[in-house]
Amino acid sequence: MSDRGHALYAELFGDPDVSIHLSSTAIVKAMLDVEVALARAGADAGVIPAGAVAAIVAGADAASVDLAALAHDAAAEGNLAIPLVRALRRRVAAHDAAAADWVHYGATSQDIIDTGMVLQLGAAVPPILASLAAADARARRLAAEHARTVMAGRTWLQQATPVTFGLTAAGWADAVGRVTRGLRVALEAVCVVQLGGATGTLAALGDRALDVRARFAQQLGLGIPELPWHTHRDRLTTLAAAMGVAVGTLGKIARDVSLLAQTEIGELRVATGGSSSAMPHKRNPVGCAVSLAAAARAPGLVATLLATMPQELERGLGGWQAEWEVIAELTHLTGGSARALRSTLDHVVVDAARMRTNLAATAGANMSEAIVLALARHVGRERAQTAVAAALRQAETEHRTLLDVMVATPEISRVMERETVARLLDPAAYIGVAEDLVARVLRTTRG
Amino acid sequence: MSDRGHALYAELFGDPDVSIHLSSTAIVKAMLDVEVALARAGADAGVIPAGAVAAIVAGADAASVDLAALAHDAAAEGNLAIPLVRALRRRVAAHDAAAADWVHYGATSQDIIDTGMVLQLGAAVPPILASLAAADARARRLAAEHARTVMAGRTWLQQATPVTFGLTAAGWADAVGRVTRGLRVALEAVCVVQLGGATGTLAALGDRALDVRARFAQQLGLGIPELPWHTHRDRLTTLAAAMGVAVGTLGKIARDVSLLAQTEIGELRVATGGSSSAMPHKRNPVGCAVSLAAAARAPGLVATLLATMPQELERGLGGWQAEWEVIAELTHLTGGSARALRSTLDHVVVDAARMRTNLAATAGANMSEAIVLALARHVGRERAQTAVAAALRQAETEHRTLLDVMVATPEISRVMERETVARLLDPAAYIGVAEDLVARVLRTTRG
Amino acid sequence: MSDRGHALYAELFGDPDVSIHLSSTAIVKAMLDVEVALARAGADAGVIPAGAVAAIVAGADAASVDLAALAHDAAAEGNLAIPLVRALRRRVAAHDAAAADWVHYGATSQDIIDTGMVLQLGAAVPPILASLAAADARARRLAAEHARTVMAGRTWLQQATPVTFGLTAAGWADAVGRVTRGLRVALEAVCVVQLGGATGTLAALGDRALDVRARFAQQLGLGIPELPWHTHRDRLTTLAAAMGVAVGTLGKIARDVSLLAQTEIGELRVATGGSSSAMPHKRNPVGCAVSLAAAARAPGLVATLLATMPQELERGLGGWQAEWEVIAELTHLTGGSARALRSTLDHVVVDAARMRTNLAATAGANMSEAIVLALARHVGRERAQTAVAAALRQAETEHRTLLDVMVATPEISRVMERETVARLLDPAAYIGVAEDLVARVLRTTRG
Amino acid sequence: MSDRGHALYAELFGDPDVSIHLSSTAIVKAMLDVEVALARAGADAGVIPAGAVAAIVAGADAASVDLAALAHDAAAEGNLAIPLVRALRRRVAAHDAAAADWVHYGATSQDIIDTGMVLQLGAAVPPILASLAAADARARRLAAEHARTVMAGRTWLQQATPVTFGLTAAGWADAVGRVTRGLRVALEAVCVVQLGGATGTLAALGDRALDVRARFAQQLGLGIPELPWHTHRDRLTTLAAAMGVAVGTLGKIARDVSLLAQTEIGELRVATGGSSSAMPHKRNPVGCAVSLAAAARAPGLVATLLATMPQELERGLGGWQAEWEVIAELTHLTGGSARALRSTLDHVVVDAARMRTNLAATAGANMSEAIVLALARHVGRERAQTAVAAALRQAETEHRTLLDVMVATPEISRVMERETVARLLDPAAYIGVAEDLVARVLRTTRG
Repeated sequence: MSDRGHALYAELFGDPDVSIHLSSTAIVKAMLDVEVALARAGADAGVIPAGAVAAIVAGADAASVDLAALAHDAAAEGNLAIPLVRALRRRVAAHDAAAADWVHYGATSQDIIDTGMVLQLGAAVPPILASLAAADARARRLAAEHARTVMAGRTWLQQATPVTFGLTAAGWADAVGRVTRGLRVALEAVCVVQLGGATGTLAALGDRALDVRARFAQQLGLGIPELPWHTHRDRLTTLAAAMGVAVGTLGKIARDVSLLAQTEIGELRVATGGSSSAMPHKRNPVGCAVSLAAAARAPGLVATLLATMPQELERGLGGWQAEWEVIAELTHLTGGSARALRSTLDHVVVDAARMRTNLAATAGANMSEAIVLALARHVGRERAQTAVAAALRQAETEHRTLLDVMVATPEISRVMERETVARLLDPAAYIGVAEDLVARVLRTTRG
Repeated sequence: MSDRGHALYAELFGDPDVSIHLSSTAIVKAMLDVEVALARAGADAGVIPAGAVAAIVAGADAASVDLAALAHDAAAEGNLAIPLVRALRRRVAAHDAAAADWVHYGATSQDIIDTGMVLQLGAAVPPILASLAAADARARRLAAEHARTVMAGRTWLQQATPVTFGLTAAGWADAVGRVTRGLRVALEAVCVVQLGGATGTLAALGDRALDVRARFAQQLGLGIPELPWHTHRDRLTTLAAAMGVAVGTLGKIARDVSLLAQTEIGELRVATGGSSSAMPHKRNPVGCAVSLAAAARAPGLVATLLATMPQELERGLGGWQAEWEVIAELTHLTGGSARALRSTLDHVVVDAARMRTNLAATAGANMSEAIVLALARHVGRERAQTAVAAALRQAETEHRTLLDVMVATPEISRVMERETVARLLDPAAYIGVAEDLVARVLRTTRG
Repeated sequence: MSDRGHALYAELFGDPDVSIHLSSTAIVKAMLDVEVALARAGADAGVIPAGAVAAIVAGADAASVDLAALAHDAAAEGNLAIPLVRALRRRVAAHDAAAADWVHYGATSQDIIDTGMVLQLGAAVPPILASLAAADARARRLAAEHARTVMAGRTWLQQATPVTFGLTAAGWADAVGRVTRGLRVALEAVCVVQLGGATGTLAALGDRALDVRARFAQQLGLGIPELPWHTHRDRLTTLAAAMGVAVGTLGKIARDVSLLAQTEIGELRVATGGSSSAMPHKRNPVGCAVSLAAAARAPGLVATLLATMPQELERGLGGWQAEWEVIAELTHLTGGSARALRSTLDHVVVDAARMRTNLAATAGANMSEAIVLALARHVGRERAQTAVAAALRQAETEHRTLLDVMVATPEISRVMERETVARLLDPAAYIGVAEDLVARVLRTTRG
Repeated sequence: MSDRGHALYAELFGDPDVSIHLSSTAIVKAMLDVEVALARAGADAGVIPAGAVAAIVAGADAASVDLAALAHDAAAEGNLAIPLVRALRRRVAAHDAAAADWVHYGATSQDIIDTGMVLQLGAAVPPILASLAAADARARRLAAEHARTVMAGRTWLQQATPVTFGLTAAGWADAVGRVTRGLRVALEAVCVVQLGGATGTLAALGDRALDVRARFAQQLGLGIPELPWHTHRDRLTTLAAAMGVAVGTLGKIARDVSLLAQTEIGELRVATGGSSSAMPHKRNPVGCAVSLAAAARAPGLVATLLATMPQELERGLGGWQAEWEVIAELTHLTGGSARALRSTLDHVVVDAARMRTNLAATAGANMSEAIVLALARHVGRERAQTAVAAALRQAETEHRTLLDVMVATPEISRVMERETVARLLDPAAYIGVAEDLVARVLRTTRG
């Protein structure tokens, strides 16, 4: 194994449906597909002999490429295209000596590498979108089911006014929907060919150059950019950033699940989970860890791609080369995070009873806003706030319920009945427009 | 000065037209505007007394806020809204004691801070778009003027086949156009209100909550999101990423200009530039340094915002707080970079003669691709490549021109006239479809 | 205010004792101190007239520098030194026309800016070390006091085998001790002068150059490097990284405190804390948020400094300029985090009773490792693990205590008495060498 | 291939001598070595039966581990140790059923994973140190050989006062020496065992726990930390930062080489270099691209490790998992960069004649500082500066040499002979103490 643990971690942090398009084999395959498309386009445009195409197609067989030799030669040449083209020429020559001259005709290394990468992204991102769509659907189902399941809201990790679990899940769905759309738009913008020749003028293709480029794009099902983009990487970086944002949102959901699954909170449980090597009772939220690990790693990868944007003149020296593994790793992690989150949401078990128990934990303190607001209508905000704060302290000190203390407080009992106070202390009566908000999210269609 | 050098560096790295919307004063102003809009919306919806509005408007006077006291109290409370609301209540009470109770009614700190930040971004980004549009226009003018100005293409910082300066400038314009559109779209998505109350249910506003929110948005000229987004920061991070991408593109252009302005290349000169404290003859490309410094700083800021996305449940603990200065700094740097690049392009002087001189520096070696391609049509690619390589070596060793050596090489002279070889060695005859590409870019409209 | 909110956030995220050395005023003061030291060194070495020193000292009055004008001119010149030196010459000339010629003699802008920054760091970092020392002392005190206070250990945010709070606090102290030493060593390495003249040869100072440099260093109490380091920024970046590591450790402690202070865990409470604008009962862990926000922001700043290391030849173009605000911000945030953490530890209240209650929450499941190990000595590991897992399930299903279920399990009762099982279920009896480990940390001396 | 191109890029961006210690096989081997050492230590301390060791040693055979199965199970369990220990137990049981119970005795997954990683780093970093030492030696040789080779200094990529190539190379050597020492110190600090059991108390090992830990450390040749460091990652992050700083310095040298090797500057040439797929004459500085690509990627990886430091309580949830591939990738890139830089310096060819030619390119403008300083001794700094600036402009406008113009300028000719002016215009006479500085660096010994 000449990797750095990637073989061992591939399934934990990745999604095989995504990563299959990112492998060494996939890279070579994509580059050869690009060479074939270039040959066909060249022949169709009359720039290379039509007779050369068959041999080039025959030679462009990814399965027979010696990856180890390619890796070795790439170290000397500085990229994969130079040795791959050389190897391709040799293989084409074995079929048809004359055809070898027309391999890679009019292109530069970066044309093949960049367009190959675009093909890879075009294949790798859709399964991510599918995982996101599934996670979105699951979150929406949770939102619908739990639109009235009351739970403690928590700010600064302290209990605050109540929410519903449906609202939480709707927030997840809403955000997943947005980042899915962002990813789709960014992918579409990236899906354009790179074809410029040595310095972007397409000079080697003569006056048929733009025709070749158009046919090349059509062969590959890709768009045509205004200009070659050898050192203008904004489309690519925008897609990377969209992945970074998606991974961040998935991390936020994983953070929520893992916090709500803490032993002491126990409102959620992930029914599948890792075991512990030392403690048989534990079920670790492995999927959350995967999504959070991705959320920890993606920002550095996005930053790397942003930092390499100021590439030199017609070809980057260091910046371009830095992209290759980084964009693949980011796509891999995005795929793994989406798959893990989807699985987490598929297996999340909601404990509504525990949510109610936890709501009672602060003995009504979390309902103080509601009481202050109601009382303020009678005595003004400041006096209301003072009275409620005093009641809270008294209840805590004297180990009495807040309801009892409040009803015994003249300032309060003077203006409110016991039932009114009791209702104000009921979390289920203080969830505002949570249901409407959930409904708004559920009404939005996806696509 | 309680800053960290910001006062001294503000003009160097920023654009006053942008930064004016990011200052401490602007923050307070935006938050007070939000409180006023909330009061008006509340009154219009019948949630707070209409009579309270006038006093709230009167109290919400940014100029009279004691910034030092606010900064001091924010350190104890953890955010600016708590002490600002307290101060606002005091000031409103001075006008109308009863009105004070209706200040900030139904909102949480984060509603005010987030919506205030949205207002600031809504004001700060348009001047950046204006700078970008001006830079784009200037780059397009350069592209049009220099559509036929031939210069050396450079890959790996080595001379390669020729390009035109027009093509280079068109590449700049094309990229600036794209990042401008990306920024505009991301800004639009960010421009929605935040209003959720303590935990996003809007509970304190009762059943009129969504009506209040709609009026609040209308007051501020902002959109209405499906849900409160206290811990879903994707829209904001997407805008930040769009700034990062824009800054990267500006950095790429600055890199190109600074490389082309090197003493030994001298193809561009920035007519305004910094002096040297020690060397009177120097003109330093200060604007390029500003854009490159921004391109070095932005990735870390974008990464920080991505990394803080997994915020906890209904309110982030650390992650949200980390955003405040980071988003402002990123906006500031984007503004400064756009302004600097615009100025750089306004003052760039093109030395077409020097471009021609530099093209001759490799004594024809940079034209080797053209010759190989032409010769290959007669003798095959491999023999052509060998013959040209030999001629290049011979010309270098014997200090003869490549033209003379080639004409004296039987393999070449057998199939090509001297004029043909001379034409192949003419950079101006080997710029491919550069002019068409420039024309494509110039045809695209902006806006 | 021409800042970006820095005035408002300075106290929240910073430590005035640190930031005072980072302000615009401090920058100017440091640069003028450097110019004075250079003049004195030059005069002592006989390179400039001794008579010029007095006027230079008189002119180098930071208080009378017009910061706004300096900021404006810096934008044109690209750095602060050029306009500051010009202003200094004017002021010196007012005292002694001839002396003005000897201002800044032999130096380049970067000499003044870099050495000034070293002076600032030399002043700003010691108060950070002091905060860290205080936090360390407080953590050690907590470790000593709570060496036997048993609490739940938590892995993956799930309860695992018990620990002591003393062990947790000792871990904090141990780590704070390490990062303090790392910071001290890195600061010492940074505290060397920069003096190289325009390109590092000190040519303008003639054959007395090294003598001038030695006296310059002595004047400033700084070390002498082998070489000028205009574009070799490793010492500086190493200090930045040490700050980043320190901030990370502080963030880890803040994370622990904020998790242990959650409403549902409640094992720690920070006695001082922010209030809520909407909920009177809440006490937010503001200090933890400050340390966590710093931990979120520092990595991007460190990465920026690392990324700018490949600076061009004898002076960076963009990379050097990017450092100025970044190193200041990082130092500021490190100071603020250390101060906040110190305050957090000063005000942390330990609820040992709650720790005991929480330990009971899993009804013995968290003690499963202990039971498995003991049982395995009799029946082998695998059967022990199976038996314990079954008992755990049974206890949960039948709502019985684990003790009762276990004693009723033949496989267990056959080899263990009820008291043995009861002891195995006692968390206090299963804290291993926690006390020894705490003692090891307390034995280490600081300095 | 289930990688993301790593197989193809391994040799280009890495050093096989380093990466061999980072592979999937190496990970498994290190973890099994740790399990063996734990068994031996446990037996020596009397905690496990001595008779169990032989079977554990026999079972711990890395070659027979099924990596694909391990990868698959790790995805379910969340880490490699759980399935590896299970597999190990099965294999040990095949030798000796009773011994299987004593596999992994007293340890937690993280003990094995962390200590294994320490072993890997302990093996992978020394070859990096060797590459750095070789690069240092080569840079010192260049410094010695070229101590008097005058070349243009360049600031802001503009020619400034002259330097020597020896001074440049000495700067490289000096910096490489420093970062090598930093790396060595940080590695030493990392080389301590991790052994804490489930939550750091070593409870499962009873009262012999610290004895076991000491023997465990001795077995592995590692140090003993005060405490288990499951969630205190400062030592590791400090090593990562030291790698980042080293990579930054290597990137700086690569930047210098690639700038000096530009076609138009041509002062350096890297005798080995990549070819171009389109242009036979080009020799691309591949090694520089590798070091610059590493310098672009390392900051994001260091930042990721810094950002993951605030790990939760006794085990990180996401943060720890994020480290695994990141630390390996960073080590890999550091190794590759060091190897590439060493090779670059081994093959760099210095063109002293070109250096002289380039020095003449500004027709004396780069010597303006020297002339101003000399003239200022006669007429004051300001008049000197004005006179020299005028002469520079006149020489440029009238296409005359600066010497002729100056001698014809009365203000200059009045106080200086032609020979004096000529000498002032000689770059070789204005290199200050460059030779002394080089000698200082060459005097320092390495070790």
